[in-house]
Amino acid sequence: MKITDITIDRFKTTSRTVADADGHGHPAPEPYETTSSVMRIHTDEGVEGVTVGGNAALVESIVKPLLIGRDPFYREQIWHLLNERQRLHKGTLSDKLICAVDLALWDLAGKATHQPVYKLLGATRSKVPAYASTMCGDELPGGLSTPEEYGAFAKACQDKGYSAFKLHTWQPPIEWAPDPKMDVAACAAVRDAVGPDMRLMLDPFHFYDRQDACWIGRELEKLDYYWIEEPMDEQSMSSYKWLTDQLLIPVVGPETMEGKHFTRAEWIVQNAADISRAGVGDVGGLTPLMKTIHLCESHGVRCEIHGGGPGNLAALCAMQIPGEYYERGLLHPFVDYETPPPHLHSIADPLDDEGNVTIADTPGLGWDFDWEWIAAHPID
Amino acid sequence: MKITDITIDRFKTTSRTVADADGHGHPAPEPYETTSSVMRIHTDEGVEGVTVGGNAALVESIVKPLLIGRDPFYREQIWHLLNERQRLHKGTLSDKLICAVDLALWDLAGKATHQPVYKLLGATRSKVPAYASTMCGDELPGGLSTPEEYGAFAKACQDKGYSAFKLHTWQPPIEWAPDPKMDVAACAAVRDAVGPDMRLMLDPFHFYDRQDACWIGRELEKLDYYWIEEPMDEQSMSSYKWLTDQLLIPVVGPETMEGKHFTRAEWIVQNAADISRAGVGDVGGLTPLMKTIHLCESHGVRCEIHGGGPGNLAALCAMQIPGEYYERGLLHPFVDYETPPPHLHSIADPLDDEGNVTIADTPGLGWDFDWEWIAAHPID
Repeated sequence: MKITDITIDRFKTTSRTVADADGHGHPAPEPYETTSSVMRIHTDEGVEGVTVGGNAALVESIVKPLLIGRDPFYREQIWHLLNERQRLHKGTLSDKLICAVDLALWDLAGKATHQPVYKLLGATRSKVPAYASTMCGDELPGGLSTPEEYGAFAKACQDKGYSAFKLHTWQPPIEWAPDPKMDVAACAAVRDAVGPDMRLMLDPFHFYDRQDACWIGRELEKLDYYWIEEPMDEQSMSSYKWLTDQLLIPVVGPETMEGKHFTRAEWIVQNAADISRAGVGDVGGLTPLMKTIHLCESHGVRCEIHGGGPGNLAALCAMQIPGEYYERGLLHPFVDYETPPPHLHSIADPLDDEGNVTIADTPGLGWDFDWEWIAAHPID
Repeated sequence: MKITDITIDRFKTTSRTVADADGHGHPAPEPYETTSSVMRIHTDEGVEGVTVGGNAALVESIVKPLLIGRDPFYREQIWHLLNERQRLHKGTLSDKLICAVDLALWDLAGKATHQPVYKLLGATRSKVPAYASTMCGDELPGGLSTPEEYGAFAKACQDKGYSAFKLHTWQPPIEWAPDPKMDVAACAAVRDAVGPDMRLMLDPFHFYDRQDACWIGRELEKLDYYWIEEPMDEQSMSSYKWLTDQLLIPVVGPETMEGKHFTRAEWIVQNAADISRAGVGDVGGLTPLMKTIHLCESHGVRCEIHGGGPGNLAALCAMQIPGEYYERGLLHPFVDYETPPPHLHSIADPLDDEGNVTIADTPGLGWDFDWEWIAAHPID
């Protein structure tokens, strides 16, 4: 089988969230029209691999010259080619774009073999406990604008079946943010609202210094929180090693620091975090995410998966040690997460009454596109 | 798909090698009748996974109760179950038996999806440079009984196309073995016979002390050898850390030390070897071998694969960094390696004129059994 073409279809769709000046998502006042895209890897045997995303110009200039004519089952070779090519295309050939290519190749492998990807990887389970992962704090009354509102939302999530809840608290451009005391107040209000049994985690502002991060961590220990995530700039591994030494609560990371599985290996050797972390988008696809997971297993270190979506869910269903939760969201009291956007027939991560997400048993990664809708709403 | 049964067929076949009192293979005076077995994992959909080996009593008592009724694509789950069950069955439920189960499950996955296993893993290549790996030294005139005979055999391998050659030298029960000076004399004779360009490696007696191992290593440096392998008891990781500090020539290991990918992680963290090492039989299958490879890649450490056969070849064709050679053998001047035993239609590792082994593109792991022959030569 040979790759014959890679195409990107841009189309109109509807969104319920808007990004603030720092790039964090919040509820939109009304659903509004936006654009999205799907990338398709075509083969001479008619099998296609599909994923969301992809940049048409970069696919044309960098990806296609490397991939056309290759066997799409040579994922490992292709991933290394892209990884090496990245050196001279820093900031252009992003880990996210490599991720899109890798996910499309995995989708293709699943479709060619009539298997869901998690079974190709070697499955461990078909459902995973999820935590409700909030959007960042805001100034929308009734939303996530006060500690009490976080508490009320956590209780609503608990009532829906979730066994775990993670706060993203207030960040710039909110004028008074960040504020360690407000972070801890929100965490306390959540613990107060849900009682002692729900697993709780915090992912606060990412540029606190060591002292603020440590103070927050110690307060979370008193509140019986399950982990603390990225409270400092991950470019300083030394800061994380210091923080991990100071705290009893598990420190989770790295998440956004570049360097893929190689960076995770360094953090493990240095004991810079208690629990490792990666998602398909952070490390350049499902191929390096599985390597990260295998690295972590070899060292007896948990790896909590960053973000949701079909690629991360496939990884979670093919790992036993050390991944625990699916990150579901980001969620907000004002945003309907359960109804798919118009270009999808269904969401990839349906929740059951016990707070678990079940993976699709359809061939490939499990995207459930509405191709008619996409065809009817083209851009260009 | 569900696993419905696991069966072992024992049958008569022919062998050209005999084991000495220490378990090392040597040429048999004549081909002679021996026994072998194939393990088959059966499913409710008629697809079977097959591999060589398997112990009928242990499969019945330990493996079947764990596997019957499970989806054979749940390899990761099954591997962890067997790994945990091993704790109370030390020495009974061996890594080799877990390996056989895992290889049969991979073979099954390949057959169910009509893909060779190296493509399911994500391929990098379809052929791999091989090194000629000798049997241990002997006292058979014209065989491997003198340094000069090693030299002549290396030259014959070079003429056949091999670009690399590894000596296994003299060990007990040979009366005068081990002898560091004889090891080095054989290595010198080989270098002399093949000239400067062939890659040469040594895998000597495995229980030298630090001083002997270091002396041999320094002599190999003068002879421009490519690596030294397992010259000391691997139960002492400290000895390997010491040796690796002393030598410029890369030290390769661990190979036989138990603990699977977990042990490889410890050796990497401690810099106990320059190059890691594992084969499917050492770590309990292809599943943990790929984890070892991913671990090594994450740390920028090469991993040379121990032993041949379809499982190891599949791994080598799905890794780019850091695996270099296929270990072909064990070879001896008196033994015809190229002609398959009567229960196989063809060998799994055919050599081309340039010293490469090419992997089969048939579904599964690529065993090419002669089922008629096996059926016609049953034992019980």
